[in-house]
Amino acid sequence: MNTYSSKLLENAVDELSRLPGIGRRTALRLALHLLGEETTTVDALANALTTLRNEIKYCRSCHNLSDSEMCDICRDSRRNREIICVVEDIRDVMAIEKTNQYRGLYHVLGGIISPMDGIGPKDLTIDSLLQRVQTGEVKEVIFALAATIEGDTTNYYLYKQIKGFDVKVTTIARGVSVGDELEYADEVTLGRSIITRYLYENAMSR
Amino acid sequence: MNTYSSKLLENAVDELSRLPGIGRRTALRLALHLLGEETTTVDALANALTTLRNEIKYCRSCHNLSDSEMCDICRDSRRNREIICVVEDIRDVMAIEKTNQYRGLYHVLGGIISPMDGIGPKDLTIDSLLQRVQTGEVKEVIFALAATIEGDTTNYYLYKQIKGFDVKVTTIARGVSVGDELEYADEVTLGRSIITRYLYENAMSR
Repeated sequence: MNTYSSKLLENAVDELSRLPGIGRRTALRLALHLLGEETTTVDALANALTTLRNEIKYCRSCHNLSDSEMCDICRDSRRNREIICVVEDIRDVMAIEKTNQYRGLYHVLGGIISPMDGIGPKDLTIDSLLQRVQTGEVKEVIFALAATIEGDTTNYYLYKQIKGFDVKVTTIARGVSVGDELEYADEVTLGRSIITRYLYENAMSR
Repeated sequence: MNTYSSKLLENAVDELSRLPGIGRRTALRLALHLLGEETTTVDALANALTTLRNEIKYCRSCHNLSDSEMCDICRDSRRNREIICVVEDIRDVMAIEKTNQYRGLYHVLGGIISPMDGIGPKDLTIDSLLQRVQTGEVKEVIFALAATIEGDTTNYYLYKQIKGFDVKVTTIARGVSVGDELEYADEVTLGRSIITRYLYENAMSR
């Protein structure tokens, strides 16, 4: 005898447990929760998911998720079009936007070069980035990739491709986190923060 | 400026984060995961949830979740119709079914008496249970509720209602878990396991 008394319930649990990080126990809890909700609430959830999947677009300039051909950031005339910040995925765009410290454009690579995972330069939006750089409008490209071997590899690959153009290439600073005690910072980060030290008067003016 | 570059994405995150135990960060991870899935996969998930909510029924005899008027357990002629096991919700039915040790019927209360949460006897399927007991077919009612104050209160309330009928009322054993060391069992459980001790020869025959 099946432990589920309802095929409808079992089916919902099956589908929910396909989601990453959701086991069958959590899936059952979610399904039973939805049974206690209004029909309209469940419809709204289901509709939000199918609409997202069916209607989402990727900005044809920066490849960020967008509801139209060109994303809000790329269309915003107040943004500085001379700077492009290269990130791995949309979450990085959101994280940087939250800081309110950046007013340039982005370029979403859609991943990072990782031979172990079978991801090479061709799987990323690198050609599209080079096209943007070629227009001559861009003065600076900021690398904001993860501080990992894959991130460094990707940075180096991109740098080789871009250095022929008249563009400044920078990378975000690595250092001790704001509010962190020095003694708890790892050696590599602390070492890099010393190598990339900058004038104290520049820090004061911020 | 909104941190979400897409209203569709934001809407999906909003809806997903209404689910219990799913914060906005997890909701975003799930939404981005779904964007990488086939359209048919997302449709299957959405469809499973709306179908579950719209078409689920509750067994009119035991109130277990069911795809039809009467659940599979109540319809199964091989089950012992003389024993009813009273549980709080469907998860308990599933847990007991998994043990393969019970062949009687169930009665799902749909909750537990809890004045703190505003749940009284009228909010539960107690009248329906009494009707089943009144038919005379039932010989034993097993209480399988949580070993909490609310569970004990509900047990006592049910017992007072049922004791007028010619029905044996039992409750599941509380004791040291199989495989557990005695020294790690809490005092109350250990105490109860001594009070409700039974003949060793009965244990051997199992």
